[in-house]
Amino acid sequence: MRYGVAGRIFLGAVSAAVMAVASLVARADEGMWLLTSPPRETLRARYGFEPTAAWMEKMQKSSVRFSTGGSGSLVSASGLVMTNHHVASDMLSKLSDNGLDIQRDGYIANSEAEELACPDLELNILWTIEDVTDRVNEGTAEMSASDAASARRRAIASIEQAAGEKTGYLCQVVTLYQGAKYHLYAYKRFTDVRLVFAPEEQIAFFGGDTDNFEYPRYCLDVTFFRIYENGKPYTPEHHISWSSAGIAEGELGFVFGHPGTTRRLYTVDHIKFARDVQLPRRLQQLWRREVQLTNFTNRSEENRRMAREDFLGVQNARKALAGQFEGLLDPAMMNEKARAEARLRAWVLQDPDRAAAWGSAWDDIAEAEKRYTEFYDQRVIDLSSSTLFKTALHLVRMSDELPKPSGDRLREYRDSGLESLRFQLFSPAPIHDALEIDILRSGLAQMAETLGGDHPIVQLALAGKSPTARAEELVAGTTLHSVETRKKIGAGGSEAIATSTDPMVRLAAALDPALRAYRTKYENNVESVERQSYAKVAAAKFAFEGDSVYPDATFTLRMAFGPVKPYQEMGKTIPAFTAMGGAFERADARQGDPAFRLPPRWLDAKNEINPDVPFNFVMCADIIGGNSGSPVVNVKGEVVGLIFDGNLQSLPWAFAYDERQGRAVCVDSRGMIEAFRTVYKADRLLKELLATTK
Amino acid sequence: MRYGVAGRIFLGAVSAAVMAVASLVARADEGMWLLTSPPRETLRARYGFEPTAAWMEKMQKSSVRFSTGGSGSLVSASGLVMTNHHVASDMLSKLSDNGLDIQRDGYIANSEAEELACPDLELNILWTIEDVTDRVNEGTAEMSASDAASARRRAIASIEQAAGEKTGYLCQVVTLYQGAKYHLYAYKRFTDVRLVFAPEEQIAFFGGDTDNFEYPRYCLDVTFFRIYENGKPYTPEHHISWSSAGIAEGELGFVFGHPGTTRRLYTVDHIKFARDVQLPRRLQQLWRREVQLTNFTNRSEENRRMAREDFLGVQNARKALAGQFEGLLDPAMMNEKARAEARLRAWVLQDPDRAAAWGSAWDDIAEAEKRYTEFYDQRVIDLSSSTLFKTALHLVRMSDELPKPSGDRLREYRDSGLESLRFQLFSPAPIHDALEIDILRSGLAQMAETLGGDHPIVQLALAGKSPTARAEELVAGTTLHSVETRKKIGAGGSEAIATSTDPMVRLAAALDPALRAYRTKYENNVESVERQSYAKVAAAKFAFEGDSVYPDATFTLRMAFGPVKPYQEMGKTIPAFTAMGGAFERADARQGDPAFRLPPRWLDAKNEINPDVPFNFVMCADIIGGNSGSPVVNVKGEVVGLIFDGNLQSLPWAFAYDERQGRAVCVDSRGMIEAFRTVYKADRLLKELLATTK
Repeated sequence: MRYGVAGRIFLGAVSAAVMAVASLVARADEGMWLLTSPPRETLRARYGFEPTAAWMEKMQKSSVRFSTGGSGSLVSASGLVMTNHHVASDMLSKLSDNGLDIQRDGYIANSEAEELACPDLELNILWTIEDVTDRVNEGTAEMSASDAASARRRAIASIEQAAGEKTGYLCQVVTLYQGAKYHLYAYKRFTDVRLVFAPEEQIAFFGGDTDNFEYPRYCLDVTFFRIYENGKPYTPEHHISWSSAGIAEGELGFVFGHPGTTRRLYTVDHIKFARDVQLPRRLQQLWRREVQLTNFTNRSEENRRMAREDFLGVQNARKALAGQFEGLLDPAMMNEKARAEARLRAWVLQDPDRAAAWGSAWDDIAEAEKRYTEFYDQRVIDLSSSTLFKTALHLVRMSDELPKPSGDRLREYRDSGLESLRFQLFSPAPIHDALEIDILRSGLAQMAETLGGDHPIVQLALAGKSPTARAEELVAGTTLHSVETRKKIGAGGSEAIATSTDPMVRLAAALDPALRAYRTKYENNVESVERQSYAKVAAAKFAFEGDSVYPDATFTLRMAFGPVKPYQEMGKTIPAFTAMGGAFERADARQGDPAFRLPPRWLDAKNEINPDVPFNFVMCADIIGGNSGSPVVNVKGEVVGLIFDGNLQSLPWAFAYDERQGRAVCVDSRGMIEAFRTVYKADRLLKELLATTK
Repeated sequence: MRYGVAGRIFLGAVSAAVMAVASLVARADEGMWLLTSPPRETLRARYGFEPTAAWMEKMQKSSVRFSTGGSGSLVSASGLVMTNHHVASDMLSKLSDNGLDIQRDGYIANSEAEELACPDLELNILWTIEDVTDRVNEGTAEMSASDAASARRRAIASIEQAAGEKTGYLCQVVTLYQGAKYHLYAYKRFTDVRLVFAPEEQIAFFGGDTDNFEYPRYCLDVTFFRIYENGKPYTPEHHISWSSAGIAEGELGFVFGHPGTTRRLYTVDHIKFARDVQLPRRLQQLWRREVQLTNFTNRSEENRRMAREDFLGVQNARKALAGQFEGLLDPAMMNEKARAEARLRAWVLQDPDRAAAWGSAWDDIAEAEKRYTEFYDQRVIDLSSSTLFKTALHLVRMSDELPKPSGDRLREYRDSGLESLRFQLFSPAPIHDALEIDILRSGLAQMAETLGGDHPIVQLALAGKSPTARAEELVAGTTLHSVETRKKIGAGGSEAIATSTDPMVRLAAALDPALRAYRTKYENNVESVERQSYAKVAAAKFAFEGDSVYPDATFTLRMAFGPVKPYQEMGKTIPAFTAMGGAFERADARQGDPAFRLPPRWLDAKNEINPDVPFNFVMCADIIGGNSGSPVVNVKGEVVGLIFDGNLQSLPWAFAYDERQGRAVCVDSRGMIEAFRTVYKADRLLKELLATTK
């Protein structure tokens, strides 16, 4: 398919577009599209491609959602799932406890028996989609924002429950367009998932934090799991096969995955809230935590291993949010947003009916964010980054929530989600005390830093001790390390909570009222107003721009598309592809920096590797965090690559897409095959991957 | 002198003290004493030691202040000055630019000709001390706080100027007891300072950030300079000689140095301001900057070298302030402070005269800190951590200030300080553009994070660009890299500033009004009230406790004292001494961590080093940042060690001394000699150091 029809047409289209105004160029391949309404017109006009219903269904049912926050795809007839190493990383750490160090050494299962069962990994495949907007909104037209929100919550719970009972699937109502539409998604749910192949972290995350979100890159950021059903490899109805040819510069690719969160519909005032309140404070937390985790990590090799996931997660978020923040300080984007909003608002006000229906939305959102700013800092009361505290809090809340009807509960305790929650809560995954102490002392100190040492919640949490002493006492005293104890307390209901002397349970019970008060304040004063108002903004946008508007990302399945394409940076062209040989050159150039050290297996295989085989590439697809692990497929629906990153210039895509420099970063399928063949001699995996390749 | 008289008496005293109440034990060897009023009574009673006037004068005139913020001592008849490697570090970096890497390789001058002249290092030796309290306060009794502050500022300027003209010395009026007393200090000033010896940073700062502020330690944190006068080694009137025997456990030692800042006199409300506002926000800045400098540093070896000083400084401050903050969250210290304050205030209120004179001070301070909190965040407008911006700001301000009478100027532009200021301003030390860009983009982004993207100062500073683009533009466009240009603009006065098109000068001129407004607000609403009120608090304290009260640290010469003494931590005894062999053991135990890698010279000399020679030790002297480089002397006034750190438990000493666990950390003079002899073969240095040792 190199230089195929789609590719050639695209190249023509771009030459014309370059001469068009920037805002049009920027939006050329924008969009995280619902699979129920792909941008047919754009694909036909620009790429001469028309996805059939069968093509769309195959892509939908070959796409996999990782409950831990990532994407994947079914790539064999025996339930093999491809994702990123960094999506799998948490699981690899959990599997590493008994003598193995999978992060350091990688893992290759040479037989079904060697495939390692994951303690608490849940995979979902989206099976059916139904528009339930009218059922969710029924009877809410005349209600206040917060009454309407409660009514919708109840409606959603009952829709999910009914659907779940009927189908046996995991049923979730998804809020789209910030509240303008609601879809019911039914997922097949898999919890017997086993590790098949992982490379060493050194090559999966080659270049570490320095190269993260940058390009050119040389990363084999891939891992394979296998879904099992009834103890046997799962035989899926659909899967995608490998392309033998890969993808060429200029060729159109599609990305199917689960982008987490975007804020494209945000009003200008809401973006300013993000710029002036949310991002700076989130960044403060991340900088703080990154330094503390560095200190913790440097104390010993054991600390380094146990904190690795947290550390990489914090670094990654810090770099992403710093990039978003820098983007929001660039007046170009903000001015473009302001102009578009002014046009839309002027159009709304031109007509009395439109003005009455939608006119207040922008000011209502501004007002809500102003209120949010006033109590935003109270979010630090939460200590849930500690597994032990989170466990205690769940137990405390389940004792309160489970006796209520499902629709009246906090949303995570609704019947539809209970099975997944219990799967996490009663996981036998190891808990590292030293790390738990570090997390808790950090969280307790942060409470004091933010609220002041005399704040009653701080005094209650510290119980007359310094943060370090208190954290040590909590972790030494709790009995929640034991899954049996958790189950016993969980089964004992409010009686078990009231009589528990476990210090972590007592702390969770003591903090819960404040945590609930914060949440209620947020839901009633902010979230419900946003829902109501964005439904209006979206309706106005549909009416003004036609309904070719895609919803903001919601960690649900979407399709993005675009060509493989180089870009310009500081006057230089950054080529679209890197080659395998480049990894060795970069390692040589950065000798002495541990992040650029290649694994021994790679050094040994150097002469076997063809240095010209493509390794990574960039393309124009509209992606964001959560898309990690998404397959890149060609128009035939064949795997040509694997999304693993976006470049720095793509980070402001959280607020607005811009393809002048922003790019999605992918592992090339040909580079994967070359590595499996030469470095890993992973014959079993290769055979399975290439079984259906023509 | 091992187990000498002082030592034995001390040991007896401590056994009794252990049984006394904690607050008495804690204060046993407290105090950073003025050399004009050493704690004679305590020294006599507890240690049987009476310092003579000659002893005190010798110690005073052998003590050296580093203008960059540290201490040192004259240790030979030819002007040899001992300090810490980490005090010298900035200078070592500046001297490393032409092919040398002194941080990596160390430096040994084998002849006078090889001693390297420092570009901008100024050393001061305190020569005379005069109490000028009455002259400073003359006529201020009936004035408002802010009028009195102005009057005092003018009086101080004229006292300094008159004394400077009369003596030719650097004359500075020092504010003691937060404003209760004023002393005029006259310093001999030396600017021809040359490097004689520095070890590798790897052994000077062995263990890096992980071991910083901790114990046991294995650091050769020492560097030697030589003062020159008229191109010849300086022949000082006084210097201290080396002890051949070192110091023993339990033996009394003295520390002469320049502690920077303590807050011992702070009221409880003021401490709470530090705990709830100042420390958390300073820590936020430090965490942020540490992460950014880590990112910068990881980009290349060159970046690592140019940012090393900033990086180590930020890490050090972060660890120090985090320790202080943790200390303030421990209710024990806060409760003790509150009890002592309640006693004092009750005693003041018992008597109408006392109440009228001093009674309002505590509430006035609380009120001032409340006002300070309201505008505290505006301090982020300052971009002076950029050398180029700081230079521009000095030039802008000098054009405004120098035409005024000395007493009316901002204090750093008074005649008494101009020579030192110009010495810095016109320094030929290299400026690193990449680092300057990183500092400025960080500073600009921080302004936006703190004040919001729409704040007029932020808009003015960013000038319609993102922080990165703006920083690059400023550094590329400025001409202030050239010392000649700086001198030309400096000589041109306000005309040169008004017509300058240099973007950095324009930015400094644009930001200066806001910076001055902030400073004025601080001086009028906070500082002047503090001065006035703490003079009252101190007076009340003198009256209540007798005048055996030492003033808070002010980066001026002080004496501290105490015995060499182990301590308890988590139920274990931490021995007072470490030995040379321990460095090798620790390096072995932490293989793979670059912070614990010994320099090649040490590995080569391993067999020559006597592993039992004492390397580092801890003692009870009351020290704080600024004391780094202070000599530790025995009762004969001989060098037995060198202060280089305090342990974690000493960090809260900023607010209250507590010797249960807090300790000063020192290099042992015997370890230094052993290293100079075996590792460095530094015969010339050894001969000079031991010339007058008996």
